[in-house]
Amino acid sequence: MDFNHTSKSTDYIARLRAFMNDHVFPFEREWMDFIMDQNEIKDWKSWKEHPHLENLKAKAKSEGLWNLFLPDHTLGAGLSTLEYAPLAEIMGQVYNAAEIFNCNAPDTGNMEVLFHYGSEWQKEKWLMPLLEGKIKSVFSMTEPQVASSDASNIETELIEDGEHLIIHGKKWWSTNLGHPRARFSIVLCRSGNEIDKRRQHSMVIVPLDTPGVEIKRMQSTFGMYDAPSGHGEVHFNQVKVPRTHLLKGIGEGYAIAQGRLGPGRVHHSMRCVGAAERALSLAIKRSMMRNAFGKPLAKLGGNSERFAEARMDIDQARLLIQNAAWKIDKLGIENALQEVSAIKVVAPRLLQKVTDMAMQIHGGAGISNDLPLVGFFVQARALRLADGPDEVHLRRISRLEFKKHLKGLY
Amino acid sequence: MDFNHTSKSTDYIARLRAFMNDHVFPFEREWMDFIMDQNEIKDWKSWKEHPHLENLKAKAKSEGLWNLFLPDHTLGAGLSTLEYAPLAEIMGQVYNAAEIFNCNAPDTGNMEVLFHYGSEWQKEKWLMPLLEGKIKSVFSMTEPQVASSDASNIETELIEDGEHLIIHGKKWWSTNLGHPRARFSIVLCRSGNEIDKRRQHSMVIVPLDTPGVEIKRMQSTFGMYDAPSGHGEVHFNQVKVPRTHLLKGIGEGYAIAQGRLGPGRVHHSMRCVGAAERALSLAIKRSMMRNAFGKPLAKLGGNSERFAEARMDIDQARLLIQNAAWKIDKLGIENALQEVSAIKVVAPRLLQKVTDMAMQIHGGAGISNDLPLVGFFVQARALRLADGPDEVHLRRISRLEFKKHLKGLY
Amino acid sequence: MDFNHTSKSTDYIARLRAFMNDHVFPFEREWMDFIMDQNEIKDWKSWKEHPHLENLKAKAKSEGLWNLFLPDHTLGAGLSTLEYAPLAEIMGQVYNAAEIFNCNAPDTGNMEVLFHYGSEWQKEKWLMPLLEGKIKSVFSMTEPQVASSDASNIETELIEDGEHLIIHGKKWWSTNLGHPRARFSIVLCRSGNEIDKRRQHSMVIVPLDTPGVEIKRMQSTFGMYDAPSGHGEVHFNQVKVPRTHLLKGIGEGYAIAQGRLGPGRVHHSMRCVGAAERALSLAIKRSMMRNAFGKPLAKLGGNSERFAEARMDIDQARLLIQNAAWKIDKLGIENALQEVSAIKVVAPRLLQKVTDMAMQIHGGAGISNDLPLVGFFVQARALRLADGPDEVHLRRISRLEFKKHLKGLY
Amino acid sequence: MDFNHTSKSTDYIARLRAFMNDHVFPFEREWMDFIMDQNEIKDWKSWKEHPHLENLKAKAKSEGLWNLFLPDHTLGAGLSTLEYAPLAEIMGQVYNAAEIFNCNAPDTGNMEVLFHYGSEWQKEKWLMPLLEGKIKSVFSMTEPQVASSDASNIETELIEDGEHLIIHGKKWWSTNLGHPRARFSIVLCRSGNEIDKRRQHSMVIVPLDTPGVEIKRMQSTFGMYDAPSGHGEVHFNQVKVPRTHLLKGIGEGYAIAQGRLGPGRVHHSMRCVGAAERALSLAIKRSMMRNAFGKPLAKLGGNSERFAEARMDIDQARLLIQNAAWKIDKLGIENALQEVSAIKVVAPRLLQKVTDMAMQIHGGAGISNDLPLVGFFVQARALRLADGPDEVHLRRISRLEFKKHLKGLY
Repeated sequence: MDFNHTSKSTDYIARLRAFMNDHVFPFEREWMDFIMDQNEIKDWKSWKEHPHLENLKAKAKSEGLWNLFLPDHTLGAGLSTLEYAPLAEIMGQVYNAAEIFNCNAPDTGNMEVLFHYGSEWQKEKWLMPLLEGKIKSVFSMTEPQVASSDASNIETELIEDGEHLIIHGKKWWSTNLGHPRARFSIVLCRSGNEIDKRRQHSMVIVPLDTPGVEIKRMQSTFGMYDAPSGHGEVHFNQVKVPRTHLLKGIGEGYAIAQGRLGPGRVHHSMRCVGAAERALSLAIKRSMMRNAFGKPLAKLGGNSERFAEARMDIDQARLLIQNAAWKIDKLGIENALQEVSAIKVVAPRLLQKVTDMAMQIHGGAGISNDLPLVGFFVQARALRLADGPDEVHLRRISRLEFKKHLKGLY
Repeated sequence: MDFNHTSKSTDYIARLRAFMNDHVFPFEREWMDFIMDQNEIKDWKSWKEHPHLENLKAKAKSEGLWNLFLPDHTLGAGLSTLEYAPLAEIMGQVYNAAEIFNCNAPDTGNMEVLFHYGSEWQKEKWLMPLLEGKIKSVFSMTEPQVASSDASNIETELIEDGEHLIIHGKKWWSTNLGHPRARFSIVLCRSGNEIDKRRQHSMVIVPLDTPGVEIKRMQSTFGMYDAPSGHGEVHFNQVKVPRTHLLKGIGEGYAIAQGRLGPGRVHHSMRCVGAAERALSLAIKRSMMRNAFGKPLAKLGGNSERFAEARMDIDQARLLIQNAAWKIDKLGIENALQEVSAIKVVAPRLLQKVTDMAMQIHGGAGISNDLPLVGFFVQARALRLADGPDEVHLRRISRLEFKKHLKGLY
Repeated sequence: MDFNHTSKSTDYIARLRAFMNDHVFPFEREWMDFIMDQNEIKDWKSWKEHPHLENLKAKAKSEGLWNLFLPDHTLGAGLSTLEYAPLAEIMGQVYNAAEIFNCNAPDTGNMEVLFHYGSEWQKEKWLMPLLEGKIKSVFSMTEPQVASSDASNIETELIEDGEHLIIHGKKWWSTNLGHPRARFSIVLCRSGNEIDKRRQHSMVIVPLDTPGVEIKRMQSTFGMYDAPSGHGEVHFNQVKVPRTHLLKGIGEGYAIAQGRLGPGRVHHSMRCVGAAERALSLAIKRSMMRNAFGKPLAKLGGNSERFAEARMDIDQARLLIQNAAWKIDKLGIENALQEVSAIKVVAPRLLQKVTDMAMQIHGGAGISNDLPLVGFFVQARALRLADGPDEVHLRRISRLEFKKHLKGLY
Repeated sequence: MDFNHTSKSTDYIARLRAFMNDHVFPFEREWMDFIMDQNEIKDWKSWKEHPHLENLKAKAKSEGLWNLFLPDHTLGAGLSTLEYAPLAEIMGQVYNAAEIFNCNAPDTGNMEVLFHYGSEWQKEKWLMPLLEGKIKSVFSMTEPQVASSDASNIETELIEDGEHLIIHGKKWWSTNLGHPRARFSIVLCRSGNEIDKRRQHSMVIVPLDTPGVEIKRMQSTFGMYDAPSGHGEVHFNQVKVPRTHLLKGIGEGYAIAQGRLGPGRVHHSMRCVGAAERALSLAIKRSMMRNAFGKPLAKLGGNSERFAEARMDIDQARLLIQNAAWKIDKLGIENALQEVSAIKVVAPRLLQKVTDMAMQIHGGAGISNDLPLVGFFVQARALRLADGPDEVHLRRISRLEFKKHLKGLY
């Protein structure tokens, strides 16, 4: 066991930190205000990206801080999941910063899917512009009318029609749907009723300008639309695409989804850790500067113990995620399911708890938009539901635990 | 000990419930959407009340469901704090519904202050229009530059200048500041540096159109402005008002504040209980109708236990608040300080916990604006800071506990 | 609503407090040491009561502080469940003190059963000596081989045999089984397999000297036997008793058990509240006298907040129990099932939490037998399992909650 | 980063597991019963070791599973703290099992102290018999009259008297004090009042048969004496020993204590993890076999979620400890203080929580001595106080966190 980072990781960490300090933290306040303003624009079709974002992305690309998440040496940085983890943490310190490095969800997951399972044509057509950061993409899984945390509930149908595929159904919470550069969605559909529940689904690439694709509305979380990306409801009304838009094959949807979600959960979780570190740091600084009852807040009541609890929670969560990443890299996602479910529960819960504490230390400022805490809190709250609510993952963890007992592994 | 409601309470409970069912619940969705739209209007001076609100207020007034909070028999309903408590709970089930019955903060607290401590002129000029629901009022206590949870930190100065008073300083989180009908604020100022810390403050009525009153901005909590009421930052730049605007006397501010906050905290807390009941009810209904893994959510994992925990927490909080109200009524607020601080901590924490659980049961819908849960959550989160963060109240509770020991009461 | 105690309660409270202060607290240390010594005697048949106990019991009886739990005016104190509650709290401050007032479980429950359902002969034979404190009794419900929290699992059989009843089966955790004065047990048996699960059980009085009654061993909780009462395993090997020993009738066992457990849970819960108050008080005193890092513990870290949390928890639990008692008195136990289950969960959990905190404040002394904390902790831990583990009660609470929804009560 | 065990660790893990399965688990029940019986012997001087223990120790020694904790290649196994950690976890699955491998506290800490700081004479005289398992030793730090968690409170005096040292003061919770083979104690004394608080203490070897050493009593935790080791109160009445008994030098006590506690806390913490794994495993097995309400407990209410939570907590704690061990090995204990304090808090808290849950799943059996759960629980509860209560460690963690901020490390 060796807890040192690889030299490759160490190098990227230093460069990414410098970039964040030089270019992202100074931009944060202005960027967040811009986003808040966008959020107040009722017509999402008018949403815009902050104009400076393109400069930052170009700079990041020129410094080699680009597509860091992709394990491929040619198209990405060639980092393992474990090597990438600390970079995700650093990006997580500023809400949305991952986008500057082309490392934001759901594009990352979609790029991984296309990289691993895409045909040459699909790669050329959809992966390359994504890798260059020219377009944005959507991933459509969750449905409004069913508890889609249980994949067997999914109702959006895919019907094979000769050389075409017809998609019919409703999706919501589709991230990036409102983005001015969004071009296509990868849609998870029910394509059959095989006894093997892992063979019932398929994934299809649906360009957003296909006839029948109807974007109904953007959805807010805690009143925020996450403009200009947005999370939205989209109806697929008998949408017809060529069979070439199918990913891998009929019935492969579940397998692709599993592979897609593993590293994605590591990314999400490490960003949570980064955000939690930031929230703790803000809380500590505030507590050292602000006085009440003749003392800095740091010396009042249980405040210092809250910081100690946060330190212990953060360090444990980070290690759990790194261990999960290591397992994914070494044993494959299918042998790290319990670990991946565990981090999905632990990390957002951590972020919500630490941010809640930091808010309390900040008083009224803590729940205003003057600080990044509200953004972190909403991110955490949403992540406890996204990719399956925590309870579904607790269920999976316990089922895998029961299996170990049945196999006599204890 | 008798846990029955008084017959007076029972009558009001029945009538208020009927009014809520007939007029408020059916209006809730439309009202909330209207408020969300108002929130997206950047220029707060354009904020409007929903036009139907006036009709509802007139109807409530005509049915005698008006100013229920005021213990005076002539001007209000003549209910004790304890008798009013269940009515606050019922109103709390719909965000902002208290306004329909002229029972919303901070107007209620201001009316109580004017009722108890106002001069005849002050009553005529400011209390009567408030009681009629014609105008709105603001309460300005918290300050941006200090931890104002410790009243001795308050910096806004009041200087006596012959027949005038000059107020200078900055306040924020002043509720109602953005309301189109807001006419004045009661401002808590430092008026001296007496050794007795309870004699250092005074309260003054400052009409919002007085020269020097500068409304800087509206503040959002979790991105929401609570339009059209708003919570804002206001600067008092050498604002001059006649001495007749002083409440009670120089040095009486602390005493008034204590009296003001007691019943107010009962109201806030019981509204939290009402909102928590609503959230629990929504969660249970959802859990009985929504299926995953072949079962209703109600039968999955620990969901049913979460409902049981919520039931126990809600029932305990309600009883604690009722007991505090009873103590205020029987022994006076100065003998119920520990109880009042306790409910200030318990009730918002309860609401946040139960709402968080209900969100989780609802999946994505839970954090959207399709349901009242987000509103409840933000209400709870803000209340954990408003009127002094929880930690200040825990501090007070423990200090009163130490005192009992020093007095040999154990 | 009126939170004042009745004058009857108030009088008893004053007298009981005086008795505790004058006679029980001064005796506590010696008594507990004696009990610890008894616990180390391997042969439970040699267990003895502390000789001074008889004096105290005589004194309590002479002062009218006797059988306070029994609502009957002639045989007991004629107090309602609610009126008795604060007395149970006061007794709860010293482990086992209830015994001094003939108010200890399971004798209290057994006396209530005999009082309500016993025949004249049964009352004369068994109730009278219990009321006089001359004998002790046992209640045998839990079984070693099944999860007896689900009554339908109970296996001990009762077979009707003409004028006799034959009992066959195993019970454990039968309290008082080791007591030198224990004379009989009330045994819950399966007497049929009626479709109505509430008609499958019966209760029988089994004198402990009946042939076939085999006391196998005393059971320890956390290594303690609770000598000289003991909790034990007893086998009923084809035990034959006359039909006159049957309580009420065949199939009435479930109904009797429900009635028995209601007030009993109020007693247990209020004793927990009393013990929690004591633990909090000990913690606060210690924190004011003991120094570390140049300050009394009271001023270190989160200690004072822990006291505030305990105060809030204790006050809420007490009110919840009082409300449950009031419901039992007013509406009958069958209409207070949710409340009774709630206090069964809340009170022992409270006691465990507060005691755990108090231990921590006391350092090593806290987990030694120099203080009553260990006793309280074990009491709490055991109560979380006794009369059905908490989880069974959470289950019941949620099921009653679902029912309200199905009935449209929300 | 590489989470694999070293091959050396892997080999020891396999051999230790086999030994536990073949020799320790089968012996556990009998051993525990023997210990419980010893606990009931009032005169601790009659306490005995289980006769089979010697056989097991001889067997362990012959298989090279001996002194595994000692990093020295000649005298111990030559394992790093990190390499030893998983072995401590395995031993932790059975209460006291570490003793079989000569790896039990406080002998391990004393051996480390003697190994690192002992003179040749001290090593020959005291270290060698300890390494051979022939004698037992005591460590005396905590004092009855002060909060000894703050070392500056320590009152036991060491006075230099020419070629002798005189020790005077009281200690308690001195582990092993009642053991029939206990021969000496290492006593932490105040030897001066230097301004540098880290130079005020010294450590001395005091043979237990020195005149003036007075063993007052054995202390119980939760009524258990932990026979035949015992934790006791000992008075040093003007005890005179030759200066050769001094460890390292006057004023070196604090430094030695720090070095002693680091690896010791890793050992304690990993044993907690092992015990927690065992408790979880017992709970899961029980839940799969026991039925209530027509289902195995595993499928009732929130039980399965409790297992998932335990899995997440255990995995996080283990990683945190391994990381702390790695830091101790790589950077030295003085650079791992925050990590060491963190595991001191996290691991016993984890064990208490998981054991409490496992007890609940087992019903009455869970709190009896039929299962190892009570032992684990008491171990956890005591460890939350031993080596400084958790609160002292939270304090240290937050102070180190503040320092990072003052140094601008964030």
